[in-house]
Amino acid sequence: MARTGDDTKQRIREAGVALLSAEGLSGVSLGALAERARMSKSGLFAHYRSKDDLQIDLLLASTEISARVVVTPAMSAAPGLPRLEAIFGLWCGWSRRAGLPGGCPIAAALFELDDLPGPVRQTVVDLEARWRGLLAGFVRGAIAAGHLPEALDVDQVVWEMTGIYLAHHAAMRLVRAADADDRAQAAFSRLIASAADDQKTQKTRE
Amino acid sequence: MARTGDDTKQRIREAGVALLSAEGLSGVSLGALAERARMSKSGLFAHYRSKDDLQIDLLLASTEISARVVVTPAMSAAPGLPRLEAIFGLWCGWSRRAGLPGGCPIAAALFELDDLPGPVRQTVVDLEARWRGLLAGFVRGAIAAGHLPEALDVDQVVWEMTGIYLAHHAAMRLVRAADADDRAQAAFSRLIASAADDQKTQKTRE
Repeated sequence: MARTGDDTKQRIREAGVALLSAEGLSGVSLGALAERARMSKSGLFAHYRSKDDLQIDLLLASTEISARVVVTPAMSAAPGLPRLEAIFGLWCGWSRRAGLPGGCPIAAALFELDDLPGPVRQTVVDLEARWRGLLAGFVRGAIAAGHLPEALDVDQVVWEMTGIYLAHHAAMRLVRAADADDRAQAAFSRLIASAADDQKTQKTRE
Repeated sequence: MARTGDDTKQRIREAGVALLSAEGLSGVSLGALAERARMSKSGLFAHYRSKDDLQIDLLLASTEISARVVVTPAMSAAPGLPRLEAIFGLWCGWSRRAGLPGGCPIAAALFELDDLPGPVRQTVVDLEARWRGLLAGFVRGAIAAGHLPEALDVDQVVWEMTGIYLAHHAAMRLVRAADADDRAQAAFSRLIASAADDQKTQKTRE
């Protein structure tokens, strides 16, 4: 019995993340999702008490998917710079590889909710901070492996990686630019080359 | 009489751009704007035939404001790299300086409409391409002045500037990070330093 409930919740979340990816948070309501998941709105109320509750859960579900298609496979790369390069490559365009119909729900939410206070916005703030913290761990891994200099401003590198990711998102999804992946890779390579060169303190050169 | 009509349209557009800046396109409808501008919905219909029509005009109005607070003042900087640096500095956080209550309406629309086809999305695509073309002109101006190398990939520089701008937007508006301006400036300086260094073809060094 519990299994069936879990399956239903799983089906609702999959339909919800697809809706969120395609239409953004403004397209996600209990009514819209009930229609998409072909169930009654009262059936949905058994799982979510409010639209905020639903939106927050779908944002969390999105990060669970990105953990699976971005973070886990990156961990099989060699520690240090290879792993940092792997997570960047896997991060760009992950929503497409995850089978989502649209772009990254978190990136869209960054801009959609920036000026709209409330618990959903707070969730986005928390998830974005958590993601930056995770990327910082990968950069620090490259420093620990001696691939990037100790004196590197880790937060600055992560900040700039976020910029490349957002530009890639816009180029790929809005502009539909064929060279989005190449441009992102070139930008990232330049960032890493300049980080490695920073203050000429690269440990492997000592 | 015509003057009064112009004034009304001006007042509607100002209220509309403020609404767009704060709530994004999903918050902009004829009903919401009528309430914000304290006029009747039928009064608004004299100016806009549809929600698409309204949203497109408010996106255009946003670019008219950014032309005034970003492009025009940048033109008073010396030609070449100083002018490119000026437009980048003026671009970051322009909506706040323009007195808008929220972030850049075009940046938000890039993410809000990426997967939603229609005439409003097409307007965003066109405005974004026009803006990149304008920035490319500033980069080419720096090349013509001998401040950046001839062999530079201009579109790549513009692409990366866009990334820094989007990261700055997210850092400033969503994260409310106090260091957003400094981070953006550091990223831009690194981009320009690496562009100037590119292939060691900097003309001023010949």
